[in-house]
Amino acid sequence: MKALERLFERIAQRVTINLREFGFDVHPYAEQLVPFEKLSNFYGFYGVSSQHPLDFKFLHSNLAGSYFLGKCRTTNSIVYKSDIRGDELKKKGEVFKAQGFQIPLTRDEGIRIEDSFLVKTLVHNHSHDPEHPERFPICNTIACRYCNIHGSPMDGSFLEPFATIDLTTMNDCIVGAFSYIQAGEVHHLRIAPGTIWVKSPGRFNFLYQYPKDSLIRYVQFAPGFPAKGQLMNFVRKRKEDFQRVFATVNGEAGITVPGSASVDRYAVIKFKTSISDNVLVAQRAFLENSRLGKGANAQENCYIISSNLAGYDVTAHGAKIVEVDMGEMVFVGFNSFLRGRPDARLAIGRDSIIMPHTIIDSDQPLHIPDGSLVWGLVTGPEDLAKNSISLEELRGIEGGFSRGRLFFEGSGSNFVDAFCQRIQHILEANGAFYDGNSGRGHAQKNQNISFNTIQPYSEGALKGMFPTIDILP
Amino acid sequence: MKALERLFERIAQRVTINLREFGFDVHPYAEQLVPFEKLSNFYGFYGVSSQHPLDFKFLHSNLAGSYFLGKCRTTNSIVYKSDIRGDELKKKGEVFKAQGFQIPLTRDEGIRIEDSFLVKTLVHNHSHDPEHPERFPICNTIACRYCNIHGSPMDGSFLEPFATIDLTTMNDCIVGAFSYIQAGEVHHLRIAPGTIWVKSPGRFNFLYQYPKDSLIRYVQFAPGFPAKGQLMNFVRKRKEDFQRVFATVNGEAGITVPGSASVDRYAVIKFKTSISDNVLVAQRAFLENSRLGKGANAQENCYIISSNLAGYDVTAHGAKIVEVDMGEMVFVGFNSFLRGRPDARLAIGRDSIIMPHTIIDSDQPLHIPDGSLVWGLVTGPEDLAKNSISLEELRGIEGGFSRGRLFFEGSGSNFVDAFCQRIQHILEANGAFYDGNSGRGHAQKNQNISFNTIQPYSEGALKGMFPTIDILP
Repeated sequence: MKALERLFERIAQRVTINLREFGFDVHPYAEQLVPFEKLSNFYGFYGVSSQHPLDFKFLHSNLAGSYFLGKCRTTNSIVYKSDIRGDELKKKGEVFKAQGFQIPLTRDEGIRIEDSFLVKTLVHNHSHDPEHPERFPICNTIACRYCNIHGSPMDGSFLEPFATIDLTTMNDCIVGAFSYIQAGEVHHLRIAPGTIWVKSPGRFNFLYQYPKDSLIRYVQFAPGFPAKGQLMNFVRKRKEDFQRVFATVNGEAGITVPGSASVDRYAVIKFKTSISDNVLVAQRAFLENSRLGKGANAQENCYIISSNLAGYDVTAHGAKIVEVDMGEMVFVGFNSFLRGRPDARLAIGRDSIIMPHTIIDSDQPLHIPDGSLVWGLVTGPEDLAKNSISLEELRGIEGGFSRGRLFFEGSGSNFVDAFCQRIQHILEANGAFYDGNSGRGHAQKNQNISFNTIQPYSEGALKGMFPTIDILP
Repeated sequence: MKALERLFERIAQRVTINLREFGFDVHPYAEQLVPFEKLSNFYGFYGVSSQHPLDFKFLHSNLAGSYFLGKCRTTNSIVYKSDIRGDELKKKGEVFKAQGFQIPLTRDEGIRIEDSFLVKTLVHNHSHDPEHPERFPICNTIACRYCNIHGSPMDGSFLEPFATIDLTTMNDCIVGAFSYIQAGEVHHLRIAPGTIWVKSPGRFNFLYQYPKDSLIRYVQFAPGFPAKGQLMNFVRKRKEDFQRVFATVNGEAGITVPGSASVDRYAVIKFKTSISDNVLVAQRAFLENSRLGKGANAQENCYIISSNLAGYDVTAHGAKIVEVDMGEMVFVGFNSFLRGRPDARLAIGRDSIIMPHTIIDSDQPLHIPDGSLVWGLVTGPEDLAKNSISLEELRGIEGGFSRGRLFFEGSGSNFVDAFCQRIQHILEANGAFYDGNSGRGHAQKNQNISFNTIQPYSEGALKGMFPTIDILP
């Protein structure tokens, strides 16, 4: 265990140094994140695909991550049950457009994870930072369970459980549990739990703060204790189904998958689930008793249970959907928790946007009209009125508005356009519109990935560590 | 499939060039060895252990081999369902004793497989060639199903099914099916099927030739056809049990294994099998309804069915033992096929040596007395009389003798001593005499191996090929 303990200490010290201005010591938070014994039991895996150039190097690390598609360097890090999905990295020869600049790329982009500790974290997409378009670094960072690091280069940060950093370059920050940050660039901030912040400088600023007392029912995190609350209970309850999937070498979905769709072999598919054309089911997604209509997607770590998705619906990473009927083109953002009841189902009208990190948990039936935007905590019809707006109304807003715990400033139409463009991009990238000829995306490209599994040393001083592995095309 | 076909062509051409003096074209033999489609389905795996320094490099190859422990370079090769077991490679700093020389080693020995095609082949041990003690090369060589390459550097050779090359440096040879060659150094020979040849220059020479008409009942191999015969039927019948073992990530033996013993997770253990102290069950061994007494071992690709091994018995690579009762310290050599019947069991007395590639297949009960040497084809009591001798009698022979199809010259006591020393060494290396403190061998050391599985590209021009993989400690 020696080398693994030294590795953990090294990471904890580096993150603590980065966060010294807050007097923040990560040790009491991080020490119970994963028992060391588990780190030497679980295996990692990476995809081998003809679509992505391989260029891995793992050094002095414990790894139970996966995909790692594209260029990857992992040094002095612990990556435990995480999805590092480098399948949208930028390629040499492309031109990266960002904030009015057109940046020619002279080399392939690479993910670099160094002196970091990621637990059940999703790292996806590519660096959205125009200052270093070929590097997507996650350095000196600890991300706790079920965080998403999405297109966001990170340095010296600590993310509490269920936090999402989206399209944001982050340096020396502490992000509270269940916070969602999409703010371009943030430095030296301590962000309270349950902060939903979407900012585009000069265009709009969306800021919602969860009521603290309510949030802790869902996510609670304190130094020295593992995360608690209903979100943790929800995922824990379904852990065993994943163990079964990870225990076989070549899993079978057990359902009919159309030729234009793909179901990852590390997804859980339970009874009475149906998959239509152009559907993408990513790894560690969980589907049960649900229908996914044409072009719908189920992203990593999402759960779709007893629900009906009409088509072209996006279930983003970590979202949980239970007893929901959804029209076409509904977007459910990261880590949202939509919990209907068998006798009080939730209906979401077409073209609606459920903001990332929204919690809808009502014991009465709720109906969200077509073309709505919903955010924050919704436990019944009154909350829904306070925490939603029609996209049409929002488009008309200039200057700002405030509703419930939401503070919005800037241009409503800019905000809606930005979201709609992004949803369109996600559907395109996932192959939702594939017509048999054009429009190929992940749903079509991900059908033929081989997986190599890797295990650490199981005894001796290197117990829990991986050998140096260098993989090239 | 393009790259894989080119790779096969390259290997076939190189072996054919090496064997040009025989006018031998390997294509009609080799083409049906493995359908290309299968080469892109099966995964390879290698062990990660604290006992063996890792140093792999795989390049332009198709690999479904395993273990690969110790230093390994595989270039432009196809290694399909083979066991490359580099756990007895010589180490830097050791002194290698061979033929009166004491050779200091200044670097770790490495296995190098280059421009070769190995199908279900075992490669084990270390190079016994004092001319290049740090290199164990298998170059420009095709080995068909169930061959053993044991401590034998090879260049430019073609091995038909079930051939074994043991402690022999071989260059530009064709070795017939089911032949066993242990002859120090052989060059430019074409060896007929069913040749059993053990030669120690200046000491002894043992030569037996299977009757051709009888051998083809067991092994038959002709250009353009897959191997046929009872040995192939025997292994085919038990293929499905292995598929089950290879389909799970972490197999469980399902029986009680003493702390001093080890059962490889890639072995098949069927009902009513018991394992005593210091037993080693290697990968791809098959045990059913049998008892393995203290210090017995079941080596790679062996089958032990409805049999009773009293203890300190050696079942060498590829041996098949059915309905046999065995005393202590019995040695059953490579690829032997001992088939008793439920109503006509075979009894083998203690301290007996069953020569490699012996076939005992009698429908009458047979009893082999203590301290016997048995060879060749034995289908009943008459054959047994012709094809055996007591070790005591053999020790007294000087100059030579002939019996049945056996021709022996040299010193009988030298021959017996050489065999007994080797058996002793095998038991020691496998940890059969471990007393809780000293005498650790494979049975104790192999308990904590992690396995990494690797899969080839599953589509595109590289279909069936592996990326370059470089693994260091």
